[in-house]
Order: sequence, then structure tokens, then C-alpha cells
Amino acid sequence: MRIVVLAGGIGGARFLRGLKAAAPDTDITVIGNTGDDIHLFGLKVCPDLDTVMYTLGGGINEEQGWGRTEESFHVKEELAAYGVGPDWFGLGDRDFATHIVRTQMLGAGYPLSAVTEALCARWKPGVRLLPMSDDRVETHVAVTLPSQDTAGGTDGEADGAGERKAIHFQEYWVRLRASVPAHAIVPVGADQAKPAPGVLEAIGEADVILFPPSNPVVSIGTILAVPGIREAIADAGVPVVGLSPIVGDAPVRGMADKVLAAVGVEATAAAVAQHYGSGLLDGWLVDTVDADTVARVEAAGIRCRAVPLMMTDVQAAAAMAREALALAEEVRA
Amino acid sequence: MRIVVLAGGIGGARFLRGLKAAAPDTDITVIGNTGDDIHLFGLKVCPDLDTVMYTLGGGINEEQGWGRTEESFHVKEELAAYGVGPDWFGLGDRDFATHIVRTQMLGAGYPLSAVTEALCARWKPGVRLLPMSDDRVETHVAVTLPSQDTAGGTDGEADGAGERKAIHFQEYWVRLRASVPAHAIVPVGADQAKPAPGVLEAIGEADVILFPPSNPVVSIGTILAVPGIREAIADAGVPVVGLSPIVGDAPVRGMADKVLAAVGVEATAAAVAQHYGSGLLDGWLVDTVDADTVARVEAAGIRCRAVPLMMTDVQAAAAMAREALALAEEVRA
Repeated sequence: MRIVVLAGGIGGARFLRGLKAAAPDTDITVIGNTGDDIHLFGLKVCPDLDTVMYTLGGGINEEQGWGRTEESFHVKEELAAYGVGPDWFGLGDRDFATHIVRTQMLGAGYPLSAVTEALCARWKPGVRLLPMSDDRVETHVAVTLPSQDTAGGTDGEADGAGERKAIHFQEYWVRLRASVPAHAIVPVGADQAKPAPGVLEAIGEADVILFPPSNPVVSIGTILAVPGIREAIADAGVPVVGLSPIVGDAPVRGMADKVLAAVGVEATAAAVAQHYGSGLLDGWLVDTVDADTVARVEAAGIRCRAVPLMMTDVQAAAAMAREALALAEEVRA
Repeated sequence: MRIVVLAGGIGGARFLRGLKAAAPDTDITVIGNTGDDIHLFGLKVCPDLDTVMYTLGGGINEEQGWGRTEESFHVKEELAAYGVGPDWFGLGDRDFATHIVRTQMLGAGYPLSAVTEALCARWKPGVRLLPMSDDRVETHVAVTLPSQDTAGGTDGEADGAGERKAIHFQEYWVRLRASVPAHAIVPVGADQAKPAPGVLEAIGEADVILFPPSNPVVSIGTILAVPGIREAIADAGVPVVGLSPIVGDAPVRGMADKVLAAVGVEATAAAVAQHYGSGLLDGWLVDTVDADTVARVEAAGIRCRAVPLMMTDVQAAAAMAREALALAEEVRA
């Protein structure tokens, strides 16, 4: 069986680890979000691709969910001693090596997809990891900054209530911890981007397509914003099943509610399913605490089941993956 | 008093530390060798400038004489795990930060002299550190490699006795430990290089010019190969005093005898003085074990004294600096 998974960072990576455990003999292609890629210190950093690669390759820092295990931060300390920022993005010494290799390969002319394949030759994640695109896409967030906090933004315009700016997603997410009002999420460059080599082919050959409990706006939404990918999934003629990143009234992790608000979507399991829509999604898993929303989702034309969705460990993630695959077969039948 | 010092790496840096101790109220400008600069992992590494900066700024690894104190090597370990080389050049995590900042500033369009000044704003070496040139100069060594060891070279031509190649100085010095025959030392690009801003001005305003016991071929020789620098020193009309890097029959450290052989100069204190020549050098210090060569140096028109030249600690280096300044005053009188 061939499975295609659209993935963001931590949630996607942990789900994938469960999927590998649940379906060890399947052929899994991961289409990774690159909209939160960022250039730091002259280096190209791809947080979501690396989180998937490190998690599936056994190098992840389990507690924090991103970055490397047995990590040190000497490079970062020294950069700070030089007064070179930003200081709010956590790059460890071992992690730096990944960005150095990637940047050097990109500089030598290799596309990101080839670079990702080369990095994965070391990590052996057990899946085929593709960036959504080899073209640069950068998620920006339109925010209102308090008047005193205007550092790092661009093209600002002052008004009485603060300053409205478009900032890089990482600045919004990591530096500001999504603490300022977000008005819009714009995947800059997405409209001109082409799917990376292999992306449309993998979707076309898939038996099942899964949306893990990744962020529906800035992770899966960004992947779907690359022209051709949403259409290919809708037209694939195979079950497309997603898992809700919202349990009860809150995101399982991260701050998905903030970016959902920015695009006018209620932070509930049902609303996220409707945001994807029945044109894209055939099945949807909500947590057992949201069992009362199953009827609302099914009324929207999406087959829905309530199952435990807390990825407390690999076994829990594997159980979720089994439920997703079971729902896919139910949809197919 | 204004002192200009031409410096390579370890020997130059340790002498400078002594000079600062011996003459704390002087204005010292260091013209640093950049001929052994190298691009590694897409980063610009300037070993000699960094050794001077770290040594005078209190960040040097005292035992090895280069690199940072309290260093770790996680980036290097990870690069090796990716199979990305070279693995023979010792870059520590803290050191990497310097190269990252430098590379980023160079990429932003700053010349190396401005970058060096910015890095020194942190280290406060207590001297003005100038690269010899903002232009790229790269010392290559023409060597004969054993037939089985041809990795890393360029433009080779095989013959019965091995392969003749031009390799980067660092490959000759660090990877091969100067273990293969060297036929020529070529500072590639030097003939087109211009002295960095401030270099000729500092020489023109100097009261004394010193050549520390740095390598006369690949350190001081490379600086002198930048058009205008040798002439400015010869025409400065102030005492130019050097210290022999050869004590007895051997270099005090490093493998200066190998590169002296490559340029046809005997590895003796007297021969190095004659290699610089009386047109450039007014005074020369040899070690007490070489007292018998004083007459030979003086016969060549260079004032010479025999004094202890082993830089066993800062006090010893300071004593050498005092002797050099005393000889300069003797020459001037």
C-alpha cells in the first residue's frame, strides 16, 4: 500500500512515527511544509523537514519535540557574544551542521528536494520525505504590534492602536509566541511555486492520503496553497482522511487556535474539517471528547469517527494511525 | 610610539602578547596574513587573523595555540556523520560562530577589513588588526604526491615518481603535515591584490616595524607579496627589526624548514635574515644558541644580536619584544 502524508513539524512527525509502527510494510511518502523555512545567520533552516527527519531517524529531542538530542548551544552562545541575532530561535550545535550542509548544497545548485534526499541518506527516516516545493515559499503573518514593539517587522504603518506589519511566521510563532493579533496568513511565493519533483506523482499513485494533526493553516494549509497539490489530492480518487489537531476547545499542542482565528475559522474539530471541506476530505477523526461533533461533520459530507487523539507515546500515535487507515478503508468500501 | 607588526598565526600572536606586555602604552597595528584563509563548509575561515584575535582577546586554546578555549566539536562530528568533509581541519563549535558571522558579513558586502574590525569589537585585542588585503589571496603549494595519495589535488600530472599538483596551503600543512616534497609556494592572487585600507598608512606612520618569529615564507612572505607593502616598509625610513623563527637547526614550531626548502632558503637564522635582505631588514634577533651566526648576519648589512628566543610564556615573549625594540632604537641611533 502506498500512503501519502502531508506534514508540518512536531505533530506530523509524531503521527508519522505511529504510522510506521502501525503499517510497517507500507510505502510512505511525506510531503513536508517548507513555508516556515527561514534564513538565519546566512543558513537555510527548514524546521518542519528537519523535525520529521530527526523524529523518524532517531535524532530528535523527545522532550521538546524539535531539535537534536544530546544537543549543545555553543555556536548560539558565541553568536550572541558577537551581538549577532536573532537570539530567539533555538539552533543547537548539532542542528547547525544540518543547516550548514543544506546551505552548502543549495549554494552548489542542488534543489531542496535533492538536498533533503541527501540529508535523509544519513537519517534513514523510513519514509520518502519530499519538500512541498523546491521554490521559496515563506509564510508571513499580518499582525498588529504594540507601538513599543516594532523590532524586526517590515513595511509597517503606524496607527493609534499599534503598528500593522507583515512578519515572518517564525517571528510571530517563536519570538512573539503568537501573542499579538494576527489578521492574515500569507504564504508568500506560493502562487508562483511548483510542487517539488515527485509530489504530484506520489499523490497520483497513492492508495490513501492522510492529513496528520498538523496545523491546518500554516502547515497543511501552506502545502495545499502550492498550485496543483490541492487539485491532485481532490482528483486522486482515493480516500483522504485527516485527524483533528483540535481536541475540545484547544489545540493539542502549539497555538493553532490563533492562526485559525486569523483565517476566520473556529477552533473546533468540526470547523477544521469544514475548513478543509468535503471536496478534499473524505474522512475525519475527532477525539472522543468531541464525539458530539461527529454528526455535524458527517452532515458536511465527511465521514467522521471519534477516537482517542492524544499522541502521548508511539503506541497512542500508532493506534491513531490504525484508526485513520480503518476509516480510509471504510470510506473506500 | 606607533608599532607595526606583520603577523602569521601562533608565533605572531604569542609575540604580540609579549609586545603588549612589554610596551603597554604603544599604538600597535597588526597586518595579518590572509594567504592561508580557506573556505570550508561554505564558510570563510581566516586562521591567522583568528589566532591573533583569540590570543590577544583571551579566547585562545593555550595548549594547542589555535582555536577556542572550552571548545566542543559537535558541528564537526555531525558534518562527518553526513559524510561532508574535509575532516582534517579542526573547527570547533565556538570557532564556527566566528566563521558564520564573518561569512554572513562578507555576503552582505562588507570587506574583510570591516568584518575583522567588527569581530574585534567583541574580542578587544588591544591592537588594531588589519588583514593584509581585502582581496582574495590563497597560498598554494606545488607538491609531489605519492601515486596512491592524490585526493584533493587539482590539475595533476602523473609521472613515475608520483603526481605533481598544486594544493591549498592548509591541505599541505594540516592534512599532509608537510610530509610531501614541496617545490614552490605560490600566493595565488597576490599580484592583483591591494593592501587593505589602513595598511600603507600604518606603515607610513610607524616608528618601528617588527617581523615576529612567524613563518618567513607563508606568513610574512605572503604579506610582503601584496604589491606595495614591501616597498612601503623598505621606504618607511624607520627601523625594521625581525626575530628568527629558526633556533639552531630547526623551526621553533611548525614546519618552516619545509617551506624554506621549497623556496631554496637554508633553515638557519642567518639564511632567513639574508632572505629578507638588508634592503628590508635593519635588525635581526637570533637565539643565543645561534650566537655564532651574528657575524654572518652583520656582514650582510643587518644589525644582529643573540638573545633568548623561546616563547615559553608571556614573560619570555615580553623579553623578546623588549630586545626587538631596543635593537630598533640602536639601529635608529
